Amino acid sequence: MTTVVAGIDIGGTNTAFGIVDRSGKCIAEGRVATRDYPEANDFVQAIAVQLSSILSLRPQFKLDGIGIGAPNGNFYRGTIEYAPNLQWQGIVPLAAMFCERLQLPSFLTNDANAAAIGEMLFGSARGMKDLIVMTLGTGVGSGIVVNGDIVYGHDGFAGEIGHTIFDPNGRECNCGRRGCLETYTSATGVCRTAEELVRRDERASVLRNINSAQLTAEYIAHAAENGDALALEVFEITGEILGLKLADAVAHTSPEAIFLFGGLANAGALIFEPTRRSMERQMLNIFKGKVRLLPSGLREGNIAVLGSAAMAWNELDKSFADSK
Amino acid sequence: MTTVVAGIDIGGTNTAFGIVDRSGKCIAEGRVATRDYPEANDFVQAIAVQLSSILSLRPQFKLDGIGIGAPNGNFYRGTIEYAPNLQWQGIVPLAAMFCERLQLPSFLTNDANAAAIGEMLFGSARGMKDLIVMTLGTGVGSGIVVNGDIVYGHDGFAGEIGHTIFDPNGRECNCGRRGCLETYTSATGVCRTAEELVRRDERASVLRNINSAQLTAEYIAHAAENGDALALEVFEITGEILGLKLADAVAHTSPEAIFLFGGLANAGALIFEPTRRSMERQMLNIFKGKVRLLPSGLREGNIAVLGSAAMAWNELDKSFADSK
Repeated sequence: MTTVVAGIDIGGTNTAFGIVDRSGKCIAEGRVATRDYPEANDFVQAIAVQLSSILSLRPQFKLDGIGIGAPNGNFYRGTIEYAPNLQWQGIVPLAAMFCERLQLPSFLTNDANAAAIGEMLFGSARGMKDLIVMTLGTGVGSGIVVNGDIVYGHDGFAGEIGHTIFDPNGRECNCGRRGCLETYTSATGVCRTAEELVRRDERASVLRNINSAQLTAEYIAHAAENGDALALEVFEITGEILGLKLADAVAHTSPEAIFLFGGLANAGALIFEPTRRSMERQMLNIFKGKVRLLPSGLREGNIAVLGSAAMAWNELDKSFADSK
Repeated sequence: MTTVVAGIDIGGTNTAFGIVDRSGKCIAEGRVATRDYPEANDFVQAIAVQLSSILSLRPQFKLDGIGIGAPNGNFYRGTIEYAPNLQWQGIVPLAAMFCERLQLPSFLTNDANAAAIGEMLFGSARGMKDLIVMTLGTGVGSGIVVNGDIVYGHDGFAGEIGHTIFDPNGRECNCGRRGCLETYTSATGVCRTAEELVRRDERASVLRNINSAQLTAEYIAHAAENGDALALEVFEITGEILGLKLADAVAHTSPEAIFLFGGLANAGALIFEPTRRSMERQMLNIFKGKVRLLPSGLREGNIAVLGSAAMAWNELDKSFADSK
């Protein structure tokens, strides 16, 4: 018998899951439409049925635990709390619900923390004990690792670098405040920068040919790759801001490396180069030249599933160690 | 026999030390003038001689270890590295030097980290596992505690919140960059704010009666206590900036409490109130109303000595646990 865990990545639209062995190999994958389940109980039931059916065909595998990555996930309580992009309102004790339904230890954290654990166990952060993972997607999430453990903080909500403030008088953020890093360095933040630049800079640009509803970070990246000067400047501005706030993050926890994940990270050198330059310039001397800025070592599209599975392995190992 | 440790607080001018028992009681204290010892070896020798003489009179106490708090202290290496305010240049392996001279386990960290450990073991943070200590003195230091342990980071230099950037185009900092928090919320930063305010604000103020060489944070605090409008505004501005960067710090590690130490913290409500208001307003919703801003629970003047001793106790307990 080979023991395996299930990694579940909950998104507003879809939920992906995988059965993952100890080496990070995904034995089988599945998917449900999160939106199809207005009741969290029905969602848990749907996943449980799929997991059972997958495992009944593979009797050589024994499921030992469940790891869940979710927006607004609270590790301590195993809950999703007031997630604006999910239908389930208020506080949802999802880890307990999976545990009850499957009679297996179940763990839940936010998606960026799961990605950080995945990178440590299965990705490019193997052997590292101090690192930060930034997810640059629709929002900006972060997972901070100190001495080999995710920083959860007093209440389970630590690691919100996306909501550190770049400019107290800056852009309105979905969180109700102004100038959060997320409003500049998320996929939507990059589009806002492009729109502002198009208005105040008169150079020719393909960014002028598209209306704001159709503008995407991918489109801007594509334009930049083709040498569009405004599009290139959008990435320069974005990297400048991200680098500044990463220099602040380094001053807090002094990581060995910072990993950039998510849609915007796929722009590669376009975002990595200006970010690296800005971070390097704005870091305190004792940190200069020491902190690596790296892409994920995990396969895109699979990161959050592997991360959630990695968390489950991590927690199972801890409870095993504690029971000795 | 009662086991005790020595806590040593190294400053640019003076070094204070104390013999401290497990409950945080200081059995005896001493002091040497750091400046009198251009050679670190002679400094170690001078402290060792004083410790021996104190203990020879108190045969009921057995010295078990040494804890040292020092500017630019590196915990991992037990070194002081390139401390601008000390005569000892370059890298000084002070923990090893004490260990060799006294044949006792010796540990070294920076003064703010030592203060944080002191607060946890002997002060108002007893029972807390996630906290931040800010030392608002000539400079601004910080010690970050996550899950009961100081955050040292990859290289031993984590916890430099004083060198996070408030304004990339702001005031010149001793570190060579611009706009570090330290340039606004240290004792000297407060004086710079007062000088700027006197220049651009025409209201009557006792701050106009004193030249800049004589201006101190204490003088400004005294004026504010007497209702001087400009002096009060200096503290408002300082608290606004400190609160913003503490809100960022909360987004990183989500502490249960933040402790303010050092000269500026002695201004009490003058600095605590505007800082608390600003931090509360600028924190992400999930953190609002949850993070306490507190003064130290340790006796002023003794904090760094007790902190260094607390670190020694902490490390001795860890090595005892590891050896079991």
